[in-house]
Amino acid sequence: MFDQFEANTPLSKTEFEQRALPLRQRLLEAQFGIEKTNHPLIIVVAGLAGAGKGVLVHRLNEWMDPKGIETNTYWEHSDEEEDRPFLWRYWNKLPPRGQIGIFLGSWYTHPAQAHVDGRLSQEAFAGACERINIFERQLSDDGAIIIKLWLHVSEETQRRQLEEHAPKRQQNPRVTDNPYELRGKYQRALAVSEELVRGTQTLQCPWHIIDAEDRRFREVKAGEVILDSINRRLQFANDEEPATLLPEAADALACVNLDKCLDRSEYKRKLRKHQSRLQDLAWEAYRQRRSLVTVFEGWDGAGKGSAIRRVTSAIDPRLYKLIQIAAPSDEELAQHYLWRFWRKLQRDGRTTLFDRSWYGRVMVERVEGLASEEEWTRAFREINELESELTSHGTIVAKFFIHISQDEQLARFQAREAQPHKRHKITEEDWRNREKWPAYEGAINQMIAQTHTPLAPWHIVPGNDKLYARIHIIKTLCRTLEKALY
Amino acid sequence: MFDQFEANTPLSKTEFEQRALPLRQRLLEAQFGIEKTNHPLIIVVAGLAGAGKGVLVHRLNEWMDPKGIETNTYWEHSDEEEDRPFLWRYWNKLPPRGQIGIFLGSWYTHPAQAHVDGRLSQEAFAGACERINIFERQLSDDGAIIIKLWLHVSEETQRRQLEEHAPKRQQNPRVTDNPYELRGKYQRALAVSEELVRGTQTLQCPWHIIDAEDRRFREVKAGEVILDSINRRLQFANDEEPATLLPEAADALACVNLDKCLDRSEYKRKLRKHQSRLQDLAWEAYRQRRSLVTVFEGWDGAGKGSAIRRVTSAIDPRLYKLIQIAAPSDEELAQHYLWRFWRKLQRDGRTTLFDRSWYGRVMVERVEGLASEEEWTRAFREINELESELTSHGTIVAKFFIHISQDEQLARFQAREAQPHKRHKITEEDWRNREKWPAYEGAINQMIAQTHTPLAPWHIVPGNDKLYARIHIIKTLCRTLEKALY
Repeated sequence: MFDQFEANTPLSKTEFEQRALPLRQRLLEAQFGIEKTNHPLIIVVAGLAGAGKGVLVHRLNEWMDPKGIETNTYWEHSDEEEDRPFLWRYWNKLPPRGQIGIFLGSWYTHPAQAHVDGRLSQEAFAGACERINIFERQLSDDGAIIIKLWLHVSEETQRRQLEEHAPKRQQNPRVTDNPYELRGKYQRALAVSEELVRGTQTLQCPWHIIDAEDRRFREVKAGEVILDSINRRLQFANDEEPATLLPEAADALACVNLDKCLDRSEYKRKLRKHQSRLQDLAWEAYRQRRSLVTVFEGWDGAGKGSAIRRVTSAIDPRLYKLIQIAAPSDEELAQHYLWRFWRKLQRDGRTTLFDRSWYGRVMVERVEGLASEEEWTRAFREINELESELTSHGTIVAKFFIHISQDEQLARFQAREAQPHKRHKITEEDWRNREKWPAYEGAINQMIAQTHTPLAPWHIVPGNDKLYARIHIIKTLCRTLEKALY
Repeated sequence: MFDQFEANTPLSKTEFEQRALPLRQRLLEAQFGIEKTNHPLIIVVAGLAGAGKGVLVHRLNEWMDPKGIETNTYWEHSDEEEDRPFLWRYWNKLPPRGQIGIFLGSWYTHPAQAHVDGRLSQEAFAGACERINIFERQLSDDGAIIIKLWLHVSEETQRRQLEEHAPKRQQNPRVTDNPYELRGKYQRALAVSEELVRGTQTLQCPWHIIDAEDRRFREVKAGEVILDSINRRLQFANDEEPATLLPEAADALACVNLDKCLDRSEYKRKLRKHQSRLQDLAWEAYRQRRSLVTVFEGWDGAGKGSAIRRVTSAIDPRLYKLIQIAAPSDEELAQHYLWRFWRKLQRDGRTTLFDRSWYGRVMVERVEGLASEEEWTRAFREINELESELTSHGTIVAKFFIHISQDEQLARFQAREAQPHKRHKITEEDWRNREKWPAYEGAINQMIAQTHTPLAPWHIVPGNDKLYARIHIIKTLCRTLEKALY
């Protein structure tokens, strides 16, 4: 597959300068075009050792305006990274809108290396390619321009390159491309590369294979590919994928029996019992290095806050973080909407509690028109993909929706306004949202229908009686943990 | 010292409720007051094992509005933390303005424990206290309300507490407070605690020692102390420290010989030579786990960008990050102005290049009136303290100011406007700043006079000839690294 690209077309210094000068100029213009149109640009520079990836990256930094470019390299892992889903380290380095992220070493490096060394089975490798395709599709759907460059060199060029620099490399410890390690591995590496490129060759995020034998040709070619891809994407920026048609939502909320209740003495007994059970399970999860992600959603006034407090007061403060999701910061607005949740994930063995979550996209953002139909329709799939990233890493996921009746909500709003130390909890907005009850009901039913998955199921909690709801939540959490840990 | 606090005044359930209910109400009001007045609130909960710190933290979370409270615990270190100056992990967890950070385990935990175990000498311990005082003073000067609670328990209460919970603790691995480890260490721990409290007892950030024998008393007392401290601080929020008088600034810029220059052939030869030298030194620094922080400042048009490019193209992309400092994001504006630089520090062995830096505070922010006189005067001391935090961690610091003449600047502005692919670099603002040359000159001279320290000296680079300036910078970097590494 790659051989055809060994065109071997070296450029003379003058040829190079003739093409490089205007190219440089137009690359700068393209860069400013990106800043204006607010697309993030992701450039992946991949290829075999000795293909001159590093040199090319230096050149790109030189040709474009370093303001707004960040080059990311992944070689030494940190335990912060090891302790989270594979994609976390990449999510955290994504360029904000209007800026450029160059990835020298990327989500491709680890699967490829592990497969070459035989540490990754054929199935696992195929799975990695699938997850990469999902990751790139999510970013691209969100407007990211993803340009994937594969620098190809022949075996003897690689040998020459590595050996020329061998002395310096001996002095400068490099990770991947130690010439002695690599000797004789070319064919195997090439075969894996072909698999990798084939497995992640998508219409949306295609690979560009570049003949890297000659430095000058390589650099000009890469620059032209980048320029061309940016311009093509900026032209078609407006075309939107048609929104996928969604099946009718079953009316999950209607099936909830809101009469469930609990008297205070029984509540106190059960609370003590299940809280201490939860405390031990949280420590057991810590011992097993399993993390727990819990999502709390519900109507305004459903009692999310007080229920969460009963959960947190059972867990050692060392083991959990409570994340309150409110309006995004401008750093968050400049990223894919899932970014702000990725960045908050705690390490293995810890619990992350989300008071409101990524589901805002398909509830409030949908109903209030803060997300376009294309965006919130796409979100169902993105959310399922996010949660399966978590569960496939070993994270335990529990999702609660606390449901109350419209009358109960009214009663609670009025009670809150009467109590001085609760008055702050009730705002004009709560009253406005209340008007839109039916719209929210429809959105919630569809949300549950679309995102109720075996590994990340929804638990719809009858919330008219707060005491019952709290116990129900803590017990469900305990059961979920027990099922996963024992 | 502590014994006097063993007042032993248990509260009955009713007494507790009588005091807790109104307290809770007023704590909430105080919390909203903070949100409005935009002070960050930092609550440190410290004390011996078995004093009930965790229980108190749970209670505070319950009493106040969990929105806008983050509880931080420090027990397991990550290598990301170990690889940076001691205070980095705390800077990164500081609450934004208007919000509350509760620190259960804090900058006090490690020095105290290490000193108890005899891993920290008397001198090192005193040094740690000094650095903590500086850290807290910087935050408090910036408006942070810092409340430090020390929970005191008697030896037998501690023993009872720990042994009561021993069985559960056996099941739930806890780090610091293993009852068996602690047995017999009480006196030693108490002595160290007294040293610690004395050594960090400042007027600005005083300790509040609380008799923690009785849970109810402890909680009410802590709540009252917090409430009282917040209210006192909010009243006096407006008083400003008088700006320290600064010595006349020597005219450092005038002493620069701007005629220095280099012809292109010599430039090329030297560039090749010193770049490869720099490349090796960067790898040597990596091998020795020493990090390098380089600051680039200079007049508009002084050629910072092109000089930085010559530096970066010498260093392996794996080893450096170039940080472009532009307008702060809203997450950054909600923090102490040094926060945005702390968060960008790279790991040990890496290079962090700042294109513009914390010196903006005493140049552009001062001249354009973006920082108050009190703020930029204070900044000189804060900057020196920041840099000594870095150097005392082993970081190598190099600071460059590229100086050019006013005529040279004019010539370059005009040249830039003539060149299409450079036009973007020159804006209205550049012309406006140019008007204020004398004001900037004064600020720069004072900056250099105030922040030219033995371990973090300024290098003023003659910049009229770009080629000379680039070589000068790379050579100086090499010398600095050689001095530090060999």
